Amino acid sequence: MTVRDLVFEPGEHRSRVERTKQRMQQQGIDVLVVVDAANMTYLTGYDNWSYYWPQAVLVALDAADPVLVVRHTELQGALRSVYMDPADIVVYPESYIVQPELHGMKFVAEVIQQRYGKVRALGVELDAAGYTARGHHEIVAAFPDARIVDVGQLVNWVRTVKSPAEIGVMRQAGAIANAAMDAVVTAISPGVRECDAAAELHRALIAGTEAFGGGTPIRPSMPTGDRTAASHLSWTDRPYEPESLTTIELGGCRHQYHVGLSRSVYLGTPPEQLTQLADVTHEGYYAALDAVRPGATCDDVANAYLTSIRRHGMDKASRIGYAIGLGYPTSAWIEQTASLACGDFTVLEPNMTLHIILGMWRESWGYVFSETVAVTDTGSELLSTGPRELVVK
Amino acid sequence: MTVRDLVFEPGEHRSRVERTKQRMQQQGIDVLVVVDAANMTYLTGYDNWSYYWPQAVLVALDAADPVLVVRHTELQGALRSVYMDPADIVVYPESYIVQPELHGMKFVAEVIQQRYGKVRALGVELDAAGYTARGHHEIVAAFPDARIVDVGQLVNWVRTVKSPAEIGVMRQAGAIANAAMDAVVTAISPGVRECDAAAELHRALIAGTEAFGGGTPIRPSMPTGDRTAASHLSWTDRPYEPESLTTIELGGCRHQYHVGLSRSVYLGTPPEQLTQLADVTHEGYYAALDAVRPGATCDDVANAYLTSIRRHGMDKASRIGYAIGLGYPTSAWIEQTASLACGDFTVLEPNMTLHIILGMWRESWGYVFSETVAVTDTGSELLSTGPRELVVK
Repeated sequence: MTVRDLVFEPGEHRSRVERTKQRMQQQGIDVLVVVDAANMTYLTGYDNWSYYWPQAVLVALDAADPVLVVRHTELQGALRSVYMDPADIVVYPESYIVQPELHGMKFVAEVIQQRYGKVRALGVELDAAGYTARGHHEIVAAFPDARIVDVGQLVNWVRTVKSPAEIGVMRQAGAIANAAMDAVVTAISPGVRECDAAAELHRALIAGTEAFGGGTPIRPSMPTGDRTAASHLSWTDRPYEPESLTTIELGGCRHQYHVGLSRSVYLGTPPEQLTQLADVTHEGYYAALDAVRPGATCDDVANAYLTSIRRHGMDKASRIGYAIGLGYPTSAWIEQTASLACGDFTVLEPNMTLHIILGMWRESWGYVFSETVAVTDTGSELLSTGPRELVVK
Repeated sequence: MTVRDLVFEPGEHRSRVERTKQRMQQQGIDVLVVVDAANMTYLTGYDNWSYYWPQAVLVALDAADPVLVVRHTELQGALRSVYMDPADIVVYPESYIVQPELHGMKFVAEVIQQRYGKVRALGVELDAAGYTARGHHEIVAAFPDARIVDVGQLVNWVRTVKSPAEIGVMRQAGAIANAAMDAVVTAISPGVRECDAAAELHRALIAGTEAFGGGTPIRPSMPTGDRTAASHLSWTDRPYEPESLTTIELGGCRHQYHVGLSRSVYLGTPPEQLTQLADVTHEGYYAALDAVRPGATCDDVANAYLTSIRRHGMDKASRIGYAIGLGYPTSAWIEQTASLACGDFTVLEPNMTLHIILGMWRESWGYVFSETVAVTDTGSELLSTGPRELVVK
């Protein structure tokens, strides 16, 4: 008897599937092919590192539970992580891995035909990581009579409002993020190699707390010196220099739910333009945080920040945050739904989770500050936090 | 003046581009759109964590150097990592990130039109991670008069034979793998939480050696107990139990080049069926290793292993290895070219690098052993290694 490691109750997965079906019904879709790795995990529990091969979760209006299709080698990982009956796991042979003319999505199409018969409208995630053009060709060729519908972020939108159990997991991810930030800030010191600070950071991210460990982190950004001008660079072998700036964007991870947290560290006496930018950024952050409440829009939150920093003659072209949650490296921890940006009129609801990230990049340096919040009934709860200051060591 | 962190000389990148163009010419392709993250890094040096947004490297027969297209936020990361002139970096506005109707691949198509004029045959990586069906639609719509050609693993095949400089980097990755295996084997002990052993493993992978640090690891597999039946599960919060088996597959990483290494650890007195399987696996490994030499085929290596284990009444359905090298989580460290499998008649050449992985999975347990080799002029060089035994503690 195989022991399953379920993070959530089967009933919670069934409710997620049900809400997915409601959206499918609204769009007149019989069968949905889900390939986004986080969406697959969300619906079924599947948490096995295999997204770099063709795989899919199939949701059919007429079937109670979804079907997971993976390569044969992943069968045992699937049996140990999904909530469904083993009969709802279908594997394709290993020959698909080594013979270029075979393709896993052709097999997926055959499973759809065998399980569900005639399909009138087949939903696909046309822009999802892992939904390659070749895979799509296999699907299209197999269903000449079906309407193929791009559902966009259908499942991502179902994910956007978290359950109480998910908020609980994200609180744990936040505690890990806070501890990891302490660890890396402690490690950064003149003469210490960047890779050694990164090593301590990863140790903290994975060891977690005494009560719970961390999952697989997504690469933190932690450029130093001139490289702080860039948003997504990471460590090198070089030692930290005196009078240098480092920006750190990390994500605490628990069961592949991520909570973002960013701080900037200056070794020495920070230049005035840096402390000024930090002050303006923090003032803007408080304005944005005040704006987070049910009924407000993403646009409101972005405008609160921009109005605040513009009073100081500053501006920011890119968005100031996004919905965050379950994620794999393929799409990072970004839910790809709500953006904290002008023109995004998504209305905030309780239990949406947002990474407010204020990346104030200049040509040869930058300041980064971020925290993650959950929308509550009356405002917001901080999932990650710490002293709101430029860290000076 | 922006400081660049180039791992390889510009001349080495130019030679890679030249060899890519030769293959393009053979297929009659004017312009190639490269989206596989490892292929992009290989050609240009670009090493910035941004592959979860649309991005591409463009190689044109008529242009000396490639063009990199990324979102605006990644400009500074690009300037610091690519070998080309800054004029060969083109960025699309941040509005593409927040407005669903815009798509980065449409922008890529416009760059192709502006830079290269009329295109007769446009090569695309139809099945590459990151080449979504939606992105492909944008490309197809923009070039109604061009022949769109799936080049498959064209650049991956260019990558398969390493340069001496790449072999040097992979030797470093191998040294990191060896040190990391020591660290995790030391950490695994009854009562220790799996996540704490994983934390030590990551610390070792990133701290590297005194002479050089590690890059961003790809999630190691390290299931224990019954979960060793699965190939790609990882750690939990639970403590290791006495009389339990753990399988570890890890990759040492240096500048995103990976070297795989696997061992299995038993805490206590291993059952006889485990030691027997280990012995058979090792005997097969020596046979496979003996078969690695220039002129031999992948099929030869796979058959050497299978012939050896079949003498003991055992078999293995999945391949016993693959070409390994530069990688990002999107496609792991797998080069997606040569497979050490029956029926793969790829001929081994000096400086090909292979992860020989013997995953002998059963229904409720498994044994895993792997090392990575470089093909030499006369046989093979071990890039990762250690005592060839079931580790008993």
